[in-house]
Amino acid sequence: MIKYDILNLIDILGTIAFTVAGVSAAMQKRLDIFGILVIAFITALGGGTLRDVIIGDLPVVWIRDIRYPLIITAGTVAAIVFHRFLRNWRNTLLVFDALGLGLFTIVGLQKGIEHGFHPATNIALGTITGCFGGVIRDVILRNIPLIFQKEIYATACIVGGCSYFLLQLTSVNQGFIEMISISIIVVIRLLSVWLGWRLPEIYRKRKL
Amino acid sequence: MIKYDILNLIDILGTIAFTVAGVSAAMQKRLDIFGILVIAFITALGGGTLRDVIIGDLPVVWIRDIRYPLIITAGTVAAIVFHRFLRNWRNTLLVFDALGLGLFTIVGLQKGIEHGFHPATNIALGTITGCFGGVIRDVILRNIPLIFQKEIYATACIVGGCSYFLLQLTSVNQGFIEMISISIIVVIRLLSVWLGWRLPEIYRKRKL
Amino acid sequence: MIKYDILNLIDILGTIAFTVAGVSAAMQKRLDIFGILVIAFITALGGGTLRDVIIGDLPVVWIRDIRYPLIITAGTVAAIVFHRFLRNWRNTLLVFDALGLGLFTIVGLQKGIEHGFHPATNIALGTITGCFGGVIRDVILRNIPLIFQKEIYATACIVGGCSYFLLQLTSVNQGFIEMISISIIVVIRLLSVWLGWRLPEIYRKRKL
Repeated sequence: MIKYDILNLIDILGTIAFTVAGVSAAMQKRLDIFGILVIAFITALGGGTLRDVIIGDLPVVWIRDIRYPLIITAGTVAAIVFHRFLRNWRNTLLVFDALGLGLFTIVGLQKGIEHGFHPATNIALGTITGCFGGVIRDVILRNIPLIFQKEIYATACIVGGCSYFLLQLTSVNQGFIEMISISIIVVIRLLSVWLGWRLPEIYRKRKL
Repeated sequence: MIKYDILNLIDILGTIAFTVAGVSAAMQKRLDIFGILVIAFITALGGGTLRDVIIGDLPVVWIRDIRYPLIITAGTVAAIVFHRFLRNWRNTLLVFDALGLGLFTIVGLQKGIEHGFHPATNIALGTITGCFGGVIRDVILRNIPLIFQKEIYATACIVGGCSYFLLQLTSVNQGFIEMISISIIVVIRLLSVWLGWRLPEIYRKRKL
Repeated sequence: MIKYDILNLIDILGTIAFTVAGVSAAMQKRLDIFGILVIAFITALGGGTLRDVIIGDLPVVWIRDIRYPLIITAGTVAAIVFHRFLRNWRNTLLVFDALGLGLFTIVGLQKGIEHGFHPATNIALGTITGCFGGVIRDVILRNIPLIFQKEIYATACIVGGCSYFLLQLTSVNQGFIEMISISIIVVIRLLSVWLGWRLPEIYRKRKL
């Protein structure tokens, strides 16, 4: 059951990362304390909840496992307190969001594998798990979802997901494959922002 | 089955209250008649639907029980007709939204108890049932969700939910416990608006 | 199994129509290529996914049937390439959205019949299947949902759904009933835009 435990650990790390990202996004909008808590829950649980609902794995895990609400509540309090000593919320949001993106994509992808779905479906489930907590958060906060900003976002999940399946063809240890795929997603996401990477332009210039 | 009947009655009262609140919100935006109906359905059924989907109690109740669509349709027509004689839509929305909030929070909480979940989970389910119909409505209407306006909203659900569990430790009759908890939520919500209650400020003054 | 095959064909045609509508909406907002793909998926699968989740028919069909992701991906690429030769995105969006609306409403309605729900519930399920992919798309893209623009939209689904049940009382062939109902929805939707049809005004003039 060691594999299960590692996946579980990744899931909890992703929950913490997305909790902090959610708190940062909510504090940028100066929500009150319960508003921040609600946004932290939505950011951390939204993607996995959507995934579990779509595949019919109900009730969703955080209803049965009280650890998730506890971690998010504790993480929210810690992030609020810690934030008082921070200046740069935008960068905090960026880094923790990238971490959550990488961790949750692989969690979602592996859940699809457990259910025996097609690899393309599993990459889609990973992308949903990684991206949609943030999408729901951004829609509710009336931000433009990060996924649609002219930066590489869902693309990082898809590249990381493909790497995961390609690495299965090698003799690399399963735990390493997970770490490499997660790192690929986090690094692509962060570098794309810091270096200003863009996807190829598909619109003609000066059109309207 | 008396207990079930009371819960059912509370559920129907909450449906009516949220139908009126939905019609008020939709008429503020001057939607046409079917737009108003759609928003009334979303306001009245959104929170309970999200709760039932999350816990896997499917199909959701209003698919099987034709009373809900009938009540919402009749309530929408009545609220539109009645609205012609009203001046203050904002206050109508406020009062009916507070009633629905209190009624649905206790319905959702008790549904969680029936499923044997943890008390903290049940309070969360109550809060989801009470708050998220309005959240989805506000997101679709492109309003700032009430839950994030600088008034006490989700907090009222959480206080009411805690009261419910604390009152179980006393010898108070179950029906009274429900009425008291519902009243606590409604009163906290209304007083918070009328008296301008706020949660403690967590942001430093003059920051940015 | 001919009836099943026709329904399946209608579902795939609706998927293609909504894919093109989603690509048009996303390109109007000048999203990058993966943003367009995500919006195409949401437009094409959102309504049916919401319907299947509500009635508990899980996992949703596109998780098990790899044809849907393939069709949407291929349709997105084709629509992007084809769009380079188009001027009028707004009309493209309108026509394909009307086609998807008609096709998906009847698919959703018939799925309700298969589950043995009440005719009113089935019309509601058809309307959800037809309308909500576009609603979710518009909310995420921060447009005013088409359903709430002062044009006839959900009304077309309801009229088409009622026609379907009324035609069952006649001796018209089932395949024809489907084609007639779909045509009614598409034609009502298109004419309402081109001729400027409106629902009856319910607001008093000069109020506020």
